[in-house]
Amino acid sequence: MDSLSIDVLHNYYDQHQKSLVEDYLKFLSFPSISTDPEYQEPTLACAHWVENYLAEMGFKTELWPASDHPVIYGEWMGAGLEAPTLLIYHHYDVQPVDPLELWETPPFQPTIKEGQVYARGAQDNKGQCFYTLAAVKAILHLQKALPINVKFCIEGGEECGSHGLDEILPRYAERLKADYLVIIDVGIPDQDTPSVVLGTRGLVAMDVVVTGSNIDLHSGSHGGLVFNPLRALTKLLGHLHDNNGHITIPGFYDQVQEMKEEDRQKIDFDFDQASYETFFQTEATGGELNFSPQERNWVRPTLEINGVHGGYCGTGFKTVIPAKAFAKISCRLVPDQEPAHIGALVKAYLEQNSPPGTEVKVDVHSGFGKAVRVDINSKVVQAFAKAFSEIFNRPCKYILEGASIPITPKLAEASQSETVLVGLGLLSDQIHAPNEHFGLDRLKKGFLIVARALQHLALK
Amino acid sequence: MDSLSIDVLHNYYDQHQKSLVEDYLKFLSFPSISTDPEYQEPTLACAHWVENYLAEMGFKTELWPASDHPVIYGEWMGAGLEAPTLLIYHHYDVQPVDPLELWETPPFQPTIKEGQVYARGAQDNKGQCFYTLAAVKAILHLQKALPINVKFCIEGGEECGSHGLDEILPRYAERLKADYLVIIDVGIPDQDTPSVVLGTRGLVAMDVVVTGSNIDLHSGSHGGLVFNPLRALTKLLGHLHDNNGHITIPGFYDQVQEMKEEDRQKIDFDFDQASYETFFQTEATGGELNFSPQERNWVRPTLEINGVHGGYCGTGFKTVIPAKAFAKISCRLVPDQEPAHIGALVKAYLEQNSPPGTEVKVDVHSGFGKAVRVDINSKVVQAFAKAFSEIFNRPCKYILEGASIPITPKLAEASQSETVLVGLGLLSDQIHAPNEHFGLDRLKKGFLIVARALQHLALK
Repeated sequence: MDSLSIDVLHNYYDQHQKSLVEDYLKFLSFPSISTDPEYQEPTLACAHWVENYLAEMGFKTELWPASDHPVIYGEWMGAGLEAPTLLIYHHYDVQPVDPLELWETPPFQPTIKEGQVYARGAQDNKGQCFYTLAAVKAILHLQKALPINVKFCIEGGEECGSHGLDEILPRYAERLKADYLVIIDVGIPDQDTPSVVLGTRGLVAMDVVVTGSNIDLHSGSHGGLVFNPLRALTKLLGHLHDNNGHITIPGFYDQVQEMKEEDRQKIDFDFDQASYETFFQTEATGGELNFSPQERNWVRPTLEINGVHGGYCGTGFKTVIPAKAFAKISCRLVPDQEPAHIGALVKAYLEQNSPPGTEVKVDVHSGFGKAVRVDINSKVVQAFAKAFSEIFNRPCKYILEGASIPITPKLAEASQSETVLVGLGLLSDQIHAPNEHFGLDRLKKGFLIVARALQHLALK
Repeated sequence: MDSLSIDVLHNYYDQHQKSLVEDYLKFLSFPSISTDPEYQEPTLACAHWVENYLAEMGFKTELWPASDHPVIYGEWMGAGLEAPTLLIYHHYDVQPVDPLELWETPPFQPTIKEGQVYARGAQDNKGQCFYTLAAVKAILHLQKALPINVKFCIEGGEECGSHGLDEILPRYAERLKADYLVIIDVGIPDQDTPSVVLGTRGLVAMDVVVTGSNIDLHSGSHGGLVFNPLRALTKLLGHLHDNNGHITIPGFYDQVQEMKEEDRQKIDFDFDQASYETFFQTEATGGELNFSPQERNWVRPTLEINGVHGGYCGTGFKTVIPAKAFAKISCRLVPDQEPAHIGALVKAYLEQNSPPGTEVKVDVHSGFGKAVRVDINSKVVQAFAKAFSEIFNRPCKYILEGASIPITPKLAEASQSETVLVGLGLLSDQIHAPNEHFGLDRLKKGFLIVARALQHLALK
């Protein structure tokens, strides 16, 4: 079977663009919010749509029930036992949409404006998933076969921690077995820079509840008597970083290793701080100030407060001392930091430092993942690097990613495969935020890169 | 006209109890939440009901339009120019009801259980307002006249700061003119202790908004780059008190005077800490630890966080760095602390200490009131003290109140009257909280006390 040239793929895309974009918008229209039980039904409908899409392409498909949402499995093994097998990971679930009032167009009515598609999931991960599906579909359409064996594992619980897939991995390990694993859920530093990701940070998340009195109290009648749980919570959270952004929890950095110079040399740590600050209208003042911005985001752990609520927050005023106050915290981890260990450290610190008259309870969520590092010399890394270089027409860079795809190390282990992480996300895509969007130019680029990478992987 | 004896009043109440309680429950059924614009209509309906009640008793009534909700004015001047005039203050508005799910019975479907009436406003202030109305109604019923002239000023904006009444006071000052002013909106230390309140704390409140980036950001992709507004907010709020509960804002205590020993002697600072801690299932560890509990609540200023929100607070998890974070803060003030001055100090402190990369904006609400102190020897204080002693059958104590009725000093000045603050609230009434309640025994006691105090004020 001849390798499909870039030109042939270009032409295919341009000829089929209309129907491909229609399918993409259809995919985006499902409100598959995995974290909120209210969206169980549309999330399942979305899974059925994707499974059907794969089946119509010629894949043998299955839906694997999981404790969160079903995992879509698909395989095309027509390349034979001699050919390598690539496992492709995506997720069809999306983040919640609040604050809804900040969306300029409804999050599940995809809207195209100036070449950008606005919708929840437009990039993360439906956009990236869709160009992969389209690339595989195109090859099958053009050649009735793929150059290598391909398996898809598309889960529905990534945005709430991939617990469901994690739990069923042992059961399906044999089915998932592959030579290579590609996680297509990350990004490039800017529009014009091809890059492959050699690692991500890990993640551990937790809920914090502070309890004071047994009922809400009037802040005049009781102010000066009880210890306000909001004072306790802000006091605890407000002391988790020192003035240099260093995390103050004892032992938090104990497992953190300095990066080896040879590893550092391979990574492009460039960061366009001025563009970043202009785009997000803020300063890059987070994290540990004695590291460069990209180091702070890639190779240093963080602790972020993702939510706080308590007391009265509506219109007007209510002079209340609430009975309880709540927070959500997550930590991004670097290699050698164990999520469970770091979770336990944070929990112990907060619980043991609860002010007298208040009680702090921390619930560490299980199943979050470790940081990941992949080998720059592996065949799958090089195949994608070559595809990125070709399509962008410039040398591919190697970068890291500050976010986490907690399932990555577990899926790599279960499938016994060499891993690579790629994607065409930009920091400006507003994923996890109102007005998430993805460029149609990148949809096409992704299509071309995936199709070409499959060709490269077929080479001996 | 003969003075009405306690026995006659007792009998009247017992004979009319059924219809009085019915009227009280009707009053409680109006959701007159002043702070939330959604409740404009039922708040007005409540005002009409009260005005009508006064008119049917024989009062000349008016509704004075105000920027929040109308003020009900009523006067009965039949005692003649020689007789003193008592101005009675109440409010018919109530606090919001959230968290609604913690109410055991619906807040606006008053429910009697074991002698307690459960409803929003059952005590604050509809319960106390109702026993006053009932007492005046009874005297008019029994004697066709009152022993003194009586004016009512019943506002609808107390729970959102009394701005409306405050603004129209100059216009109606002449109408409100009186010899004495009684604010019936406070409490007693416990069930069996008669007491009159010689002062309240003042109040200033503000909204805080912290802005980081222009949109919500993914905490993996951006963690370590931007300064999380929730980190900024908790850092700022978490440093407003030192470990002894002392407020750290420069100048906060500058105007606070030590209480004179002769003033201290008059006040009963007893505090049953064990009962308090058992009832509210917490420890009395709030406020400045080098003062006694009752001093911390009565004669020391406080700063309380009444609400915080930001980021994702729903089911599951969202790894977000929010663009904004919000808080509501209020300070209780003691004599010589100016609300506007203290508000400006807190505002300046928070705004000037916003971490780099974040912006803090504080909006200080106007119109909140100063602390109040009244003269123990004034005739109106002594008339109520005598009535409390009679009805409880033990000596009346003199106490202070930690809460604020911001309109008190302004109303006293406009009406040129000597003031007293009384009431039958208990700390356990759960005002401003779910399951607010008031005892029917106290409804009767309040009725008797007000009726008797009017008799005592008529004496030369």
